[in-house]
Amino acid sequence: MIKKIIDGRKNINQVKELLDSRSGDNLEEYREIAAEILKNVKANGDQAVLDYTARFDGIEFKAADLEVQASEIDKALKAVDNDFLKALENAAANIEAFHSEQKTSSWQKQKKPGIITGQVCRALKKAAVYVPGGRAAYPSSVLMTVIPAKVAGVEEIIMLTPPDKNGEVSDVILAAASIAGADKIFKLGGAQAVGAAAYGTETIPAVDIIVGPGNIYVSMAKELVFGQVKIDMIAGPSEIMIMAEKDSNPAYIAADLMSQAEHDPLASSILVTDAAELIPEVEKELEEQIKNMSKKDIIEESLKNYGLMITVNNQQEAVEMINLVAPEHLELAVKNPFEILPSIENAGSIFLGEYTPEPIGDYYAGPNHVLPTNSTARFFSPLSVRDFVKYSGFIHYSKEALEEASQDVICLAEGEGLDSHANSIRIRTEKGEKSE
Amino acid sequence: MIKKIIDGRKNINQVKELLDSRSGDNLEEYREIAAEILKNVKANGDQAVLDYTARFDGIEFKAADLEVQASEIDKALKAVDNDFLKALENAAANIEAFHSEQKTSSWQKQKKPGIITGQVCRALKKAAVYVPGGRAAYPSSVLMTVIPAKVAGVEEIIMLTPPDKNGEVSDVILAAASIAGADKIFKLGGAQAVGAAAYGTETIPAVDIIVGPGNIYVSMAKELVFGQVKIDMIAGPSEIMIMAEKDSNPAYIAADLMSQAEHDPLASSILVTDAAELIPEVEKELEEQIKNMSKKDIIEESLKNYGLMITVNNQQEAVEMINLVAPEHLELAVKNPFEILPSIENAGSIFLGEYTPEPIGDYYAGPNHVLPTNSTARFFSPLSVRDFVKYSGFIHYSKEALEEASQDVICLAEGEGLDSHANSIRIRTEKGEKSE
Repeated sequence: MIKKIIDGRKNINQVKELLDSRSGDNLEEYREIAAEILKNVKANGDQAVLDYTARFDGIEFKAADLEVQASEIDKALKAVDNDFLKALENAAANIEAFHSEQKTSSWQKQKKPGIITGQVCRALKKAAVYVPGGRAAYPSSVLMTVIPAKVAGVEEIIMLTPPDKNGEVSDVILAAASIAGADKIFKLGGAQAVGAAAYGTETIPAVDIIVGPGNIYVSMAKELVFGQVKIDMIAGPSEIMIMAEKDSNPAYIAADLMSQAEHDPLASSILVTDAAELIPEVEKELEEQIKNMSKKDIIEESLKNYGLMITVNNQQEAVEMINLVAPEHLELAVKNPFEILPSIENAGSIFLGEYTPEPIGDYYAGPNHVLPTNSTARFFSPLSVRDFVKYSGFIHYSKEALEEASQDVICLAEGEGLDSHANSIRIRTEKGEKSE
Repeated sequence: MIKKIIDGRKNINQVKELLDSRSGDNLEEYREIAAEILKNVKANGDQAVLDYTARFDGIEFKAADLEVQASEIDKALKAVDNDFLKALENAAANIEAFHSEQKTSSWQKQKKPGIITGQVCRALKKAAVYVPGGRAAYPSSVLMTVIPAKVAGVEEIIMLTPPDKNGEVSDVILAAASIAGADKIFKLGGAQAVGAAAYGTETIPAVDIIVGPGNIYVSMAKELVFGQVKIDMIAGPSEIMIMAEKDSNPAYIAADLMSQAEHDPLASSILVTDAAELIPEVEKELEEQIKNMSKKDIIEESLKNYGLMITVNNQQEAVEMINLVAPEHLELAVKNPFEILPSIENAGSIFLGEYTPEPIGDYYAGPNHVLPTNSTARFFSPLSVRDFVKYSGFIHYSKEALEEASQDVICLAEGEGLDSHANSIRIRTEKGEKSE
């Protein structure tokens, strides 16, 4: 089923090439459509937004219909199964606890009398969270995007999600939004939702940051409004990499490879092991377990095209492979995961030990599941409270402190040929005046 | 000289429109040229890079000529004036001390026995710092971009800067790079330098992040390689906003408005004050002081087109104006700057009190001078150690802990229709097995 079994040492670049091959070409076309939509929304506000909702979602809204009413949320909270609500609440509490550790504070230091420098940390004022509609509507993603904004202290968090064919939003999404603490929810999707949140319309407030996954038009629109607002990363197809050893349980490995593959035919599930004998056992488990899976076809397609089994000679080679791939999800299904952890340089989220399967992180444990994909864990980080704050530096010098620094600063300014900079110091300082 | 004097209360939007009017249109053309250069560098490596250097810089290099030699750096350190070197070293020490406060650490928490979550913080491995050539070559920018990377712990910091017409890099730039701790310096500029650092060539290593200002082709190239590598913000024309009151010194205000204006005809210098009587005094000082400035023409053009004097009724209105503009640099030239500071929501860098002119921050005090422009201080932050690190989340659950969480996670997974996710929990847990 996973037909690609390669010798890691010999084929180290083949792995990255396989992952890269998932990126679509010809994005220009989508980009142009998204740009056109943004331009129209910027110029025509609500009217443009309503036109696109009629055209793309088939719903004839008036402006007043865009915002979800409190009564709809109440109804949703009653409609959703109690166990599911309780599970969402437990997950939300874990996510909140984890993200609270990411908060940073303003600080200032008096270097010596008369010199104070520091940094103000503030939450962004308004944030928009995009939540896809249809089958990709995941309440867990609502928690993972809204809660970090809430913990950061964002004043107004709006959620944007396309209406279904009845002009509604699913109960589970509304319930998750309510638990996570979204302030307003709008039935609006696509590039037009991104434009509305970036520029503001009569109904939709302009925000400072737009986060959350969406289809290709949403992604393109987010890239295009970057700079007008902040955005989170652009997510690509998902990956898991599992590092396993001789005694690892092949049933667990097979289950976890499948759990990634069921997301998307473009998802990539990779096993890397120094125990070649494990591979046929995992394959056997895959054959068995897949029979009962409802997303069997997607799993098969994903594993066939982008699944990989990689053999290496030892744990060190496995780690090198991992750092090269920089997987979104990494499972260390080995006995000594905490010993391996310090050598993992590149990975979005790391699952330690055989009883920490990736779904515990997708839903529940606390760390964010919005993660860098496609090797970008080399330099990008999971979505976090950090994304929803900003900093300002600040400086205070007394007259005496400025005088002491003046010769150095004047020297540097003149060295750069900026004599108005030098003048600004000189005019305030006796030393400066003397040297004039 | 500054012809725009407006009543802040009545014309609050006019200010933002003036600043926005500085952004160029028709960026598409530059974007296409940059894209073509990137494509060629990706495909042809050193050869492409050398061809562009011949074409754009007029220098016929071989690949071996690209890297600056240790002997050239030694020569530069000897050639640069001793006072200037000493001033650079003092500035570097201040910058290093300030940025050291921005470091964050990895952490982990045991929530209860069997559940550990945490976050690994790691420096990016390789960073490239772009430094423009010609008249815009500022050694202070070398310090401001290299030192945060160094403090973060980046293993290899390369500097990219175009060769001058003799195929050399200026002594002050080399001296600053040496003091800041750049590991390698390449004589390479433009979009081709960005491409080389993003994709790697035979001579230039591929990096994880590219930072630093450059011309329009450099900016476009940085935008285009975003995702392949991380980039810092795209800088626009510079701004200063000065908040002053009745007793503020008009000579200082005039000097500081000019020190911003001398950078660029597109720079914007704005005074906001509740003391209308201050305005003619500042104008008089401008007329006087400008006579001695070498960049008189640039200052005049900048002030005439983008200079503003804004009157407001009180300090609160001034603060509202500031928060709307979100200036890159903000001077609080008032008696009580520390009392105003908490109400400043949006500003890149804040200078408190009459003896803290902006140039002390440009060069010396420690906070970074690579700042968000064009109102993006609403959501962007100064360049910092944070830009040069990344995070991974991690999770460990014991068998018992997983069992306890299993029903919630299975419930959530099944609620999202992802039964392979549920299977991955079930296969590990007795509860899960029972409920099957």
